[in-house]
Amino acid sequence: MKSDEMLLNEQQQVTSDWFHQLRDRICQQFEEIERQAASPASFQVTPWQKNTEGYGIQTGRGIRSLMKGQIFEKVGVNISTVKGCFSPDFAKKIPGTEDDPHFFATGISLVAHMANPHVPNIHMNCRFLQTTKSWFGGGIDLNPSTPYAEDTAEFHQNLKTICDKHHPDYYSRFSEWADRYFDIPHRQTKRGVGGIFYDYLDSNFAADFAFTKDVGKAFLDIFPKLVARRQNRAANQEDFQRLAVYRGRYTEFNLLYDRGTLFGLKTGGDADAVLMSLPPMAIWE
Amino acid sequence: MKSDEMLLNEQQQVTSDWFHQLRDRICQQFEEIERQAASPASFQVTPWQKNTEGYGIQTGRGIRSLMKGQIFEKVGVNISTVKGCFSPDFAKKIPGTEDDPHFFATGISLVAHMANPHVPNIHMNCRFLQTTKSWFGGGIDLNPSTPYAEDTAEFHQNLKTICDKHHPDYYSRFSEWADRYFDIPHRQTKRGVGGIFYDYLDSNFAADFAFTKDVGKAFLDIFPKLVARRQNRAANQEDFQRLAVYRGRYTEFNLLYDRGTLFGLKTGGDADAVLMSLPPMAIWE
Repeated sequence: MKSDEMLLNEQQQVTSDWFHQLRDRICQQFEEIERQAASPASFQVTPWQKNTEGYGIQTGRGIRSLMKGQIFEKVGVNISTVKGCFSPDFAKKIPGTEDDPHFFATGISLVAHMANPHVPNIHMNCRFLQTTKSWFGGGIDLNPSTPYAEDTAEFHQNLKTICDKHHPDYYSRFSEWADRYFDIPHRQTKRGVGGIFYDYLDSNFAADFAFTKDVGKAFLDIFPKLVARRQNRAANQEDFQRLAVYRGRYTEFNLLYDRGTLFGLKTGGDADAVLMSLPPMAIWE
Repeated sequence: MKSDEMLLNEQQQVTSDWFHQLRDRICQQFEEIERQAASPASFQVTPWQKNTEGYGIQTGRGIRSLMKGQIFEKVGVNISTVKGCFSPDFAKKIPGTEDDPHFFATGISLVAHMANPHVPNIHMNCRFLQTTKSWFGGGIDLNPSTPYAEDTAEFHQNLKTICDKHHPDYYSRFSEWADRYFDIPHRQTKRGVGGIFYDYLDSNFAADFAFTKDVGKAFLDIFPKLVARRQNRAANQEDFQRLAVYRGRYTEFNLLYDRGTLFGLKTGGDADAVLMSLPPMAIWE
């Protein structure tokens, strides 16, 4: 079967379509932010397809998009829709694979490293998984090298508002999950000021999909505001130094602890796509 | 027991003393290289002691030494002598811990990131371990961002000469081991031009110690020559760019695959000491 003939069931199709639309809107909006800063930067777009046998991803397609601009020093937006078969070892960690190790996954992943040290960096990821079970996962976390209490409060308030629309417990559960997840234990520090992180969400498809769409929309709503607020603030040598050191910590988190990164690299994922999350530059003092 | 009262048996004492002497000679020689380049750089020396309970290192002392110079952009030389107790999980991977999970370890570890992209970076590490068994391990690998066939050949020839003095198989076994170990599979590339890597060497104490001393002496013999040969060669923007990209790959290796780094960080080792090996700066294009 060619990957462009990959047959999707209805849930797979609507989720995959939504992530694709979200990707288009995000890329458009980010390019618009560059244009308003009189920058000609645009996303470099690389579609890919995969068709192999064996464990891991067997059939799939995706789009890697990378922009290096004046406001966005380096931003990567990846979407992918894949089918495959987990190895016996890996299947043990994944719900619903007891009788059948096949899986479907579709999702979007975004990391933005910003040029101005006053503008926070951000990460967003949403995905829909199917084995014999199906669930949503995702999250957003804000990663300022120069934290502003006002930005942090507004970011969390926005996330709380969309969480509360769906379930009274979501914000406290998912923000605590983000705190646990985005932790750099060997530095005794967090990766940023948190956000939300959720996985294995399977209350019912329509409700969980609606929540995941709201997470994507919340990202589009919140982040450009924070960028606009800080992008023209003058930065000095110390600010850039702090940003560069911070990026070293971000690199340590991603290469030592990030589940997606380790999964991608150790199962033979495309290194350039998986490591698009690494900063344009980092220092270690 | 205070760590300065740590009682060592004869083998522990002579190995620990040797690593300390090697450290002194290396630091002296590296500072001399800086002085000859009219640089005032010298090692910033941080002795440390540890005295805790529980799994991992319990009693120990060491010296972290870091120099940021004109020839050595960032070079770290660490020595440590420690006693402790492996956790049950970790003990499974270590020889001689079936009946007693206690261990002794002493060693030296060095990573040099050089300012001039024509000068190769280098890593050296030698150690003596005791559980109910005892063994030596170590290695040197050369990491040029701009490889010169002449330097690579001379480096390997020097290592072969000292290996051949001790055992006709050592060079082929240990250089192949280095090739396997210093591999970055997700980039389908090696970390550098190889060298030697050995572990669990327990033919007999005197012979293995003599070999390990020769590895240390070989380092002192080879590396300053390579530095002198390349340090005055003019480098252009492309050379510096290649160096910075190379350092990104080096960072990926160390955080994703290096056994010592992962062991150190995940058992609560001092992050500053363990991560002294990371480059002063890296980029990801």
